Amino acid sequence: MKLYSYWRSTTSYRVRIALHLKEISFDTQSVDLVNGEQRDKHYTNVNPIQGVPSLQLSDGTVLTQSMAILRYLDACYPSPPLWPSDERSAAQVDAAANLIASDIHPINNLKVGQKLKTMGHTQEDVVEWMNHWMRIGLVAFDSLLPKNCLFCFDDTPGIADICLVPQLYNAHRWGTDLAGLERLIDIEQRCLNVNAFDAALPENQPDAQAS
Amino acid sequence: MKLYSYWRSTTSYRVRIALHLKEISFDTQSVDLVNGEQRDKHYTNVNPIQGVPSLQLSDGTVLTQSMAILRYLDACYPSPPLWPSDERSAAQVDAAANLIASDIHPINNLKVGQKLKTMGHTQEDVVEWMNHWMRIGLVAFDSLLPKNCLFCFDDTPGIADICLVPQLYNAHRWGTDLAGLERLIDIEQRCLNVNAFDAALPENQPDAQAS
Repeated sequence: MKLYSYWRSTTSYRVRIALHLKEISFDTQSVDLVNGEQRDKHYTNVNPIQGVPSLQLSDGTVLTQSMAILRYLDACYPSPPLWPSDERSAAQVDAAANLIASDIHPINNLKVGQKLKTMGHTQEDVVEWMNHWMRIGLVAFDSLLPKNCLFCFDDTPGIADICLVPQLYNAHRWGTDLAGLERLIDIEQRCLNVNAFDAALPENQPDAQAS
Repeated sequence: MKLYSYWRSTTSYRVRIALHLKEISFDTQSVDLVNGEQRDKHYTNVNPIQGVPSLQLSDGTVLTQSMAILRYLDACYPSPPLWPSDERSAAQVDAAANLIASDIHPINNLKVGQKLKTMGHTQEDVVEWMNHWMRIGLVAFDSLLPKNCLFCFDDTPGIADICLVPQLYNAHRWGTDLAGLERLIDIEQRCLNVNAFDAALPENQPDAQAS
């Protein structure tokens, strides 16, 4: 498999964690979002919305959208499972994951920040914007979690953890106020002690840059 | 079941279509987003991110996030299926649905427009913003579709159609440029001739208001 990825993309980070958790071997093809490589004609054919990640399967089929890719990986490589087997529990875990995937990440990504700048806003405004949505979203996410497990919904990491850890990476990067969210930080620390999460860290990717 | 819904919410609209397609009976509990009812303490306990829809099951369990609710409904009420049974095809259909659910809708919803206004922008700016993301997203969505079926990916409607029709409702409402997207309009027309889509129309909801 080939993963089109950018080291700091939190959606790429989600898929990298799952690939490592499931011990699926893959090659990384970097798409430098900051330099605009996602808008190259070749890559636009791979992924028409010009985002990462995209996952090219061995027969050449390309899958896009991190949440769709994660669902595919879980169906085809079921161990370890990313969602609970009980449908009701799966829906509750999926809601938490989707809260990050829909209510936090898309409003904060690079192209939205770039659009705000074309509307006259400064980098400081963009950072305030990102932190606004991250704070609101992470507080809501926290309130969805049960109180009695080591990771978000279980004693092993699953889809909610896979969404949380990259979002917290971004929260630390931009200085989001995480007061009262100590449980999320505890979960993050436990995740980062798991090899698959460590291997998926932005700084451990071939296209990582000093900053 | 009880669906917490707002007539013009496109994510509520998605879930209404699925409930009608699967012939699941439900009651509607309106949450007036424009009047801020989603921020009431009672509703915040139901749905911490203060959005709609939320689906309360007969045992009182509340499910949130439209894409998680749709997945749950499809698992528990499998006829008609919303995703293809083949995993690879399912992932491709899911990517198209997620493109709308992640790359178009969240950037455009009411709270984002309200935030832009607190930053000094006019209603005209907000409409330009919404149309920008809808145009880019719908063009990308269109390019993901095969050319040879009546609905998005098949000759019967599925999850991609369930996401498309509400998004086009919003596109018409705000005057998005749909030039070159005639196929999407054709699919929309076919969907609106299906009883389930008609029953789910915003204007056919108990909380619809003249505007």
